[in-house]
Amino acid sequence: MFSETIKPRFCETDLLGHINNTVVPVWLEVGRTPVFELFTGPLSQAGPATFPLLLVSLAMDFRRILRFGVDAVVETSVTHVGRSSFALRQVIRQQGEVCVEAKATVVHADVANARSAPIPEPQRRRLEAWHAEAQAAPGSGTHEP
Amino acid sequence: MFSETIKPRFCETDLLGHINNTVVPVWLEVGRTPVFELFTGPLSQAGPATFPLLLVSLAMDFRRILRFGVDAVVETSVTHVGRSSFALRQVIRQQGEVCVEAKATVVHADVANARSAPIPEPQRRRLEAWHAEAQAAPGSGTHEP
Amino acid sequence: MFSETIKPRFCETDLLGHINNTVVPVWLEVGRTPVFELFTGPLSQAGPATFPLLLVSLAMDFRRILRFGVDAVVETSVTHVGRSSFALRQVIRQQGEVCVEAKATVVHADVANARSAPIPEPQRRRLEAWHAEAQAAPGSGTHEP
Amino acid sequence: MFSETIKPRFCETDLLGHINNTVVPVWLEVGRTPVFELFTGPLSQAGPATFPLLLVSLAMDFRRILRFGVDAVVETSVTHVGRSSFALRQVIRQQGEVCVEAKATVVHADVANARSAPIPEPQRRRLEAWHAEAQAAPGSGTHEP
Repeated sequence: MFSETIKPRFCETDLLGHINNTVVPVWLEVGRTPVFELFTGPLSQAGPATFPLLLVSLAMDFRRILRFGVDAVVETSVTHVGRSSFALRQVIRQQGEVCVEAKATVVHADVANARSAPIPEPQRRRLEAWHAEAQAAPGSGTHEP
Repeated sequence: MFSETIKPRFCETDLLGHINNTVVPVWLEVGRTPVFELFTGPLSQAGPATFPLLLVSLAMDFRRILRFGVDAVVETSVTHVGRSSFALRQVIRQQGEVCVEAKATVVHADVANARSAPIPEPQRRRLEAWHAEAQAAPGSGTHEP
Repeated sequence: MFSETIKPRFCETDLLGHINNTVVPVWLEVGRTPVFELFTGPLSQAGPATFPLLLVSLAMDFRRILRFGVDAVVETSVTHVGRSSFALRQVIRQQGEVCVEAKATVVHADVANARSAPIPEPQRRRLEAWHAEAQAAPGSGTHEP
Repeated sequence: MFSETIKPRFCETDLLGHINNTVVPVWLEVGRTPVFELFTGPLSQAGPATFPLLLVSLAMDFRRILRFGVDAVVETSVTHVGRSSFALRQVIRQQGEVCVEAKATVVHADVANARSAPIPEPQRRRLEAWHAEAQAAPGSGTHEP
């Protein structure tokens, strides 16, 4: 499981006094960065030719209001590895409490030909290892979406 | 069905050359504005005391890349009206083609007591009329999520 | 003078109840779009090779709070045309009142060699015509930054 | 001087392959947070009644392109303390090189009456100490805007 800590930004609040829900996909994207790096190599070199991933779906359940002034932790686990796509479960917590539960599906893409492409073997092995680790974690069975 | 036209902004692109997926919830929020106004009255008066709605879930399927330089149209229909919540189906198109399909669930909330509250009768009647209209629209049966 | 009308978005507010100041450069960028198009051709084709402009400075004075629920108008005029750069004055109004005054300096760049490049003649003639028009407009003398 | 380290987010890039300039005020706002806290108390309690500061101007010079995949450091110093306002100099660096130089002017405001208000003594003393410290820092003389 990957974990990224985010300090909410003032401009991410809205007039209701909390973090606006449109910010949540931004934080989830930050949480997926370690997975992206498995495919892109150094992010400072990222470009259309070196970023062979497309988000194809994202589903979010907003459990609790996200507050300003309190660190948020984004946890990301691999829940499925297919031929050319994989699924991630993501949870955002503040002070230990679950605020958002999300599921993201990512496709490995052949950029030149604009279509999905099999996940290369080195990346597949790593994703499968992360998946096995997520399944072995305590409580993962009940959390699986 | 409500329809809002959006001109993509340069800053909404990312280094892959298209609209970044974190922008989609922003456009969907714009598309829900006419529904919000049913509850809030004039938006220029909107504040914590006059905005009794909370988004509780949002699921998005990204069907096609969203391009810069091409208008996007967000269509929003009511697909369900419950006691204290309602569901919306939202579609984003560019040049007629479906780029995003989404489902949003919104809860009517008693702000003072931080819990869900029954949808008041005037708003319920309007939501149900919009729902009936969505069901009567050609093709709505196949589109219903 | 170019004029773009913007409907403030809910997510652009902050917990103080108004539009957050970090949104202002986004609206100003929208206001500069007609000037960009003079250089890029169709925006749907925009890319690193077809977008030869860099913003080198932006100064903003925030005169009045920007409110949600009220249309904002961004006015953009050319105030200076140099060899490889030009300056723009931008004003954001709500209900006729000036909320933001800004000055942007843009450099025409040779992307392949990452340095400034002379503004081509066709674009220069157009910018100078816009500049002359701005100077002839009533009140432009007092508005010039 | 305050220093905040920021990891650029993928969605902050644009189709030119770098960090879009509209992101810069967001990072600068993050850099001003320690100054804000001097006035607001705990940020988790921030609200219209406890956030008595308004940004009245922001001027930015973009010296170098901001790159994705490389940490950015925002440095913030106090350069002037007036009766009801103060000025900050802010610099954003990547790998030690100056990418952005900015000057922000902030007004202390009486929120209830929507006008500027004298900076209270405890905050003034702290701001003046920070100002003195900035002046004493090596090289601050040449950096002063």
